Amino acid sequence: MSNLTRFGISIDDELLHSFDQLIKNAGYQNRSEAIRDLIRNYLVQRQWEDSQSSVVGTITLVYDHHVPGVEHKLTHQQHEHTAHIYANTHVHLDQHNCLEVIIVKGPAQTIRSLADRLIAQRGVKHGNLTCTTTGAALA
Amino acid sequence: MSNLTRFGISIDDELLHSFDQLIKNAGYQNRSEAIRDLIRNYLVQRQWEDSQSSVVGTITLVYDHHVPGVEHKLTHQQHEHTAHIYANTHVHLDQHNCLEVIIVKGPAQTIRSLADRLIAQRGVKHGNLTCTTTGAALA
Amino acid sequence: MSNLTRFGISIDDELLHSFDQLIKNAGYQNRSEAIRDLIRNYLVQRQWEDSQSSVVGTITLVYDHHVPGVEHKLTHQQHEHTAHIYANTHVHLDQHNCLEVIIVKGPAQTIRSLADRLIAQRGVKHGNLTCTTTGAALA
Amino acid sequence: MSNLTRFGISIDDELLHSFDQLIKNAGYQNRSEAIRDLIRNYLVQRQWEDSQSSVVGTITLVYDHHVPGVEHKLTHQQHEHTAHIYANTHVHLDQHNCLEVIIVKGPAQTIRSLADRLIAQRGVKHGNLTCTTTGAALA
Repeated sequence: MSNLTRFGISIDDELLHSFDQLIKNAGYQNRSEAIRDLIRNYLVQRQWEDSQSSVVGTITLVYDHHVPGVEHKLTHQQHEHTAHIYANTHVHLDQHNCLEVIIVKGPAQTIRSLADRLIAQRGVKHGNLTCTTTGAALA
Repeated sequence: MSNLTRFGISIDDELLHSFDQLIKNAGYQNRSEAIRDLIRNYLVQRQWEDSQSSVVGTITLVYDHHVPGVEHKLTHQQHEHTAHIYANTHVHLDQHNCLEVIIVKGPAQTIRSLADRLIAQRGVKHGNLTCTTTGAALA
Repeated sequence: MSNLTRFGISIDDELLHSFDQLIKNAGYQNRSEAIRDLIRNYLVQRQWEDSQSSVVGTITLVYDHHVPGVEHKLTHQQHEHTAHIYANTHVHLDQHNCLEVIIVKGPAQTIRSLADRLIAQRGVKHGNLTCTTTGAALA
Repeated sequence: MSNLTRFGISIDDELLHSFDQLIKNAGYQNRSEAIRDLIRNYLVQRQWEDSQSSVVGTITLVYDHHVPGVEHKLTHQQHEHTAHIYANTHVHLDQHNCLEVIIVKGPAQTIRSLADRLIAQRGVKHGNLTCTTTGAALA
C-alpha cells in the first residue's frame, strides 16, 4: 500500500461554498474524499478510452426469457468468454422479465465487443455496459 | 403480452448502408431488432429523467475493504433501503479491492440518492449508477 | 469578485502520480487548476439536473438546406424564443450541409424543450444540446 | 444525393405507443424522422470512437476575461490549429464572463486534444466538446 501526499489548493470562496453544499447533500464527510472521487472518476473515464487498457465493468441486461432461444444464446456467448467473466447475478423482475448482471474484466475493446453482442441478442430489451476499474491503480 | 405492429419507414440508401454495417459488427441479426433497441434506449433515458418514475438499476462500487468501517457503513446504508434492493454480488478483485454490484428498484430520485451516499463513502474508490428498466413497459 | 481560500487535501501517492500525468497531457499547468475544473464540471452537471435553474448552453444542428421548409421552420421556432437566444453562427459544410450553433440561456427545462423541437425538424440530421454555465456562480 | 429505401419493421404495440407519445412531445411529425434521428445519433457516436475518422464538433468555453493572459493564450492555441477551425462566436455573458464557441473539424483525436488544451487554460471555468458530423455520410 502506498503513502499519502498532502498538498494545498486554492479555490474561490463562492465556488468552494457551492461545492461544500453539493457534497454535503451527496453524503461526503469531507472535501478530500469528494475531490479524490472526482479525480478517480476522471482517471477511470480516460482509462476506458484506451482500447488496450485492462478494465473491469458490469454488463446489465433486461430480457424476456419467453423469447425462444434467448437464454441459450446468452449462455453460449458467455461461455466463449469465460476468461473475462467473474460472476453473474440473476433477478426475476416479473413473469416475463429477467435482469442479469455480468461482472467482466479484460481489455476495454474485448469487453465492449462482448457487451455489444449480448445486447444485440433478440429478446434483450435493454443493456448497459458500466465502466469501472480494477481499483489497483486507484489506491 | 401485447401484439406486434408492422409499419414502413423510409431511409436514405447511404445512411441505411452505414447502419447495416454497424449493426452487423455489433451482432444484430436484423434491422428491426437494432431499431427496437434504439427505441427502447431512448425510452429508458427519458424515463430516468422523470424523478418520480419507477426504475431499475445497478450500483457498482469498487472499494478497499481495508479502510476501517467501510464495509459496516455500506451494509448499514443498504439496510435502510432493503425495500429498494433486490440482490448484491461481491467479487474479490485482489487483496485490497472488492467490487460489489447492488441491484436496485424504486423511484428514480430515491435510487439516485442511495447511489450518491454509497459512492460518497470513504474507502469507495469508484462508483456508478446504471439506469435500466423493469422491462414491463418495454414489451 | 470573491476571495481565494487555500486548504489541504491528502491523496495517495500512486493516485496523485496518475493524475499528474493525465493533466500534464491535457495541458494543465498545475493541480489546482485541474481540480477546480473537476469541481466546476460537477457543479454544472448538477445544475442542469434541476429543471428550474438558469443555465447557458449551445444547440448544435447539422442540416441539409435542400430539404424543403427546413430553414423556414428553424427560423420560425427560434423567433418564438428570442428571449432565450444570444446568437447564431452558421457554417456551410458542403453543398448540402449546414452547421448552425445557437447560443441559448434560460431555465434548463425550456432550453431542453427548444433543443428537442429544433432537432426533431425534418432535414436536421444531427443535433446536440451542450450544457454549460453563466459562469456567475463559478467565480 | 442518394435514393430512399423503404422497408418494414415490427414493433410491439405497447412499445410503439410509448414511443409515439415521446416523439410527439419532442415535436417529431412522424416515426420515420424520429427513427432516422436515432440511427444518425448512433452512427455519430460510433464515428467519434474511432480516433482517425474525420469529424466536426463545437468547443464551448466559458471564461473570465479578467484573468491575465487567458485571451492571449486561447487565441495563440487556436492560431496553431487554423486548419481545424471554421469560425468563432463570442458572447459577453456579464462583466466578467465570456462564452466562446469554436466550430472545429478534423481527425477525432486532434480535435479532442485541442479541446483538452483550451479547457485546461487558467481562466477557463467550463468547457465542453460537442461531437457532431460533417453530415456527408448521413445523407
